[in-house]
Amino acid sequence: MQVWKDYQEKNKDRFLNELLDLLRIPSISAKTENKADMLTCAEAVKQRLLEAGADKVEIYPTLGHPIIFGEKIIDPAKPTVLVYGHYDVQPAEPLELWHSGPFDPVIKEGKIFARGACDDKGQVYMHIKALEILVKTNTLNNNIKFCIEGEEEIGSPNLGKFVSTHKDLLKADCVLISDSSMISLDTPSIDIGVRGLSYIEIEITGPNRDLHSGVYGGAVANPITVLAKMIASCHDENNHITIPGFYDDVVVATPEERKLMAAAPYDEKEYEQDLGVKELWGEKGFTTNERTGIRPTLELNGIWGGYQGEGAKTVLPSKASAKISARLVPNQSSEKITAMLLEHFKKIAPPYVTVSSFEHHGGEPYMTPIDSKAYKAAAAAIKDTFAKEAIPVRGGGSIPICALFEKELGIKIVFMGFGLDSDNLHSPNEKFNLENFYKGIETIPYFHKHFTEM
Amino acid sequence: MQVWKDYQEKNKDRFLNELLDLLRIPSISAKTENKADMLTCAEAVKQRLLEAGADKVEIYPTLGHPIIFGEKIIDPAKPTVLVYGHYDVQPAEPLELWHSGPFDPVIKEGKIFARGACDDKGQVYMHIKALEILVKTNTLNNNIKFCIEGEEEIGSPNLGKFVSTHKDLLKADCVLISDSSMISLDTPSIDIGVRGLSYIEIEITGPNRDLHSGVYGGAVANPITVLAKMIASCHDENNHITIPGFYDDVVVATPEERKLMAAAPYDEKEYEQDLGVKELWGEKGFTTNERTGIRPTLELNGIWGGYQGEGAKTVLPSKASAKISARLVPNQSSEKITAMLLEHFKKIAPPYVTVSSFEHHGGEPYMTPIDSKAYKAAAAAIKDTFAKEAIPVRGGGSIPICALFEKELGIKIVFMGFGLDSDNLHSPNEKFNLENFYKGIETIPYFHKHFTEM
Repeated sequence: MQVWKDYQEKNKDRFLNELLDLLRIPSISAKTENKADMLTCAEAVKQRLLEAGADKVEIYPTLGHPIIFGEKIIDPAKPTVLVYGHYDVQPAEPLELWHSGPFDPVIKEGKIFARGACDDKGQVYMHIKALEILVKTNTLNNNIKFCIEGEEEIGSPNLGKFVSTHKDLLKADCVLISDSSMISLDTPSIDIGVRGLSYIEIEITGPNRDLHSGVYGGAVANPITVLAKMIASCHDENNHITIPGFYDDVVVATPEERKLMAAAPYDEKEYEQDLGVKELWGEKGFTTNERTGIRPTLELNGIWGGYQGEGAKTVLPSKASAKISARLVPNQSSEKITAMLLEHFKKIAPPYVTVSSFEHHGGEPYMTPIDSKAYKAAAAAIKDTFAKEAIPVRGGGSIPICALFEKELGIKIVFMGFGLDSDNLHSPNEKFNLENFYKGIETIPYFHKHFTEM
Repeated sequence: MQVWKDYQEKNKDRFLNELLDLLRIPSISAKTENKADMLTCAEAVKQRLLEAGADKVEIYPTLGHPIIFGEKIIDPAKPTVLVYGHYDVQPAEPLELWHSGPFDPVIKEGKIFARGACDDKGQVYMHIKALEILVKTNTLNNNIKFCIEGEEEIGSPNLGKFVSTHKDLLKADCVLISDSSMISLDTPSIDIGVRGLSYIEIEITGPNRDLHSGVYGGAVANPITVLAKMIASCHDENNHITIPGFYDDVVVATPEERKLMAAAPYDEKEYEQDLGVKELWGEKGFTTNERTGIRPTLELNGIWGGYQGEGAKTVLPSKASAKISARLVPNQSSEKITAMLLEHFKKIAPPYVTVSSFEHHGGEPYMTPIDSKAYKAAAAAIKDTFAKEAIPVRGGGSIPICALFEKELGIKIVFMGFGLDSDNLHSPNEKFNLENFYKGIETIPYFHKHFTEM
């Protein structure tokens, strides 16, 4: 639609500047010290929704960070799309690796660098601007609702209750989520699944205090060494996870699905070069795309213990800790795997240490059907603006609330991710290509059009 | 000698207060930020030596922290004892585990709590006060020299050059060191050996940046997992170190020596209870005393990588690091073992990561003969003040400069440690029992007397 294109062209600098303002708010949900920033950010999202043309926007408090609900209702009889996204971001550490401040966005070589540029403020903002285009050009032909939460990066602990107690408010015909990536602008793709997540933290305690490693070394178990042995035991020589029962519920992909996955463009050398590694690693018997798509994994997200400062300290520490998470695939249950992990590390602990463990957060794996109306509308929209067929792929990340929406609202989810895997999500120098940002804003109105007309 | 006892009794509160002043200076040699404190501390030690009666004290600058040399020469023809000690201390981290400020000494239940209370400012100060007693009571009958350095806790990188270029200045008949412990005031003991040390740091790099653990997890080696596997591989199921060649030069203790060690009082239940562990750990086939005395060890002193903050971050980190040290026994060579460790971790690294490693510091193991004049003088002094025979034991810690003194000055070292293993050296809440402090001051003059008269 030329009118959409013209409107965006005329307003694109403002669109960008508005996003940059949003990125300046350090909305880190994991940190207590950013609690006030979270409220500031929620308020900003509310204002932007109102300015874009939403006719009702409310901030709903929760036990944690608030949820923003907004809507533009044209006609209750027409189809309704519920846009889900999140305004919270991951912590920015390690800060010293950022080339510019994580909350001081800069544009360099056509890319927006900032924490949240892609995950997920930038992608949420595409939807807000798409709403503006549809409203301001008088071309909106369906109802749009927004549910933008502030706790996605900490596992959405309060969204479940909100959804189950606001079913009427959230009533819609599909959920549209832009919180993932596509292969590239040259090779558009649509995620048909996300992995689930179990995330735990363990602490190993050896002696009741830090000891002199000379006086006690050799006679008392070192909790770092014990933790290392425990971690090392979790993968066998084929990089298969050894935790008993871990794979029990995994749905094995069919040969057809694996064949389809193998058809997606993938250049191993390029992938290695981008990551700066000489060799890839992974579960024997599976390709890279399979390892990140259809197979569960166990990753160490953090480890610490003993002296980590400048110079040397000859200490035999009292404690060592690790943050450990598993990505899950259908039909693994996050609750079951979390319990399994918590139990496993206690079970394998030798008698000369004690283990305490607790759960951070989790989420169920989710698959979206490619024959749904929503998927077909997304595919048609991408064909309109990219002039190419989208490839269906299974994403490696997790969006824990997918299973929740389907269960509570009885509707399907469709993913339209406009980021790239190389956008440094959760890492220093997170970015979002300007071209992807604008392409997203261009494509989303077509989704609404097709979904309504189908 | 009643005159010594009387002098100490009259001045004991002042002795203590002077030590507390010294403990207030945060002389942490490992930290650049404490460079000025190191100079302040060196100056304080110089003043205390002059006040105690030394007739010449100089501060010698080095490439790192300065060395204090002082002397009291009665008659060049008489025996000379060189007292070695150090005014630098270990970093105080983890600070949150201290019950009072590490550099804000407090006396509680007859114990001085402060970083350096025992290791080694408190023990150095016993020697300064012993000098004062001998000088002020006109009973000094030998020459005493002091060499108090500021880099013991970082491996004495500049002491070697100082000693080799100041042989005349340091000329003496024995070196007396109080930088270790005894079994207890009820069971006095004298160390006859210290272990050597090799200390390295390794950094494992996987991908060139932190990655999203969902998008890349399962397809790229996680450097924490790789590091854990490498650490885990260093000890076999008997807790024997698996690094090829590690034990090659170890002098195996004779059955006689092992029998002597077994006679030292040791209560396993008490040892476990003090440390709060249900079971001890160590190399199969050796007792606890053997594990910390006559066997080499490999300890993890620190580990870090990925996200260590509050909450959860789903990151697959780029790097993971560890500080690793080995305690060595005769006739292992620190240089050889350090090179072996640096090489080993590179050698066992899988192709999907890179390893960089560097050396922190090291020191050779050292054994002192029990038939030397100096050992006999120490044993006689202890018999005088404890009314018991001292038990010879092999200490687990390291005093890297012992081998250096013997090589450069051609004299033997004798250890008179007055601390306890439970003094929390290198740990939070380091302490020194007042009773031990005063007993040390009482005993040292007898050493000088016996050494001169033998």
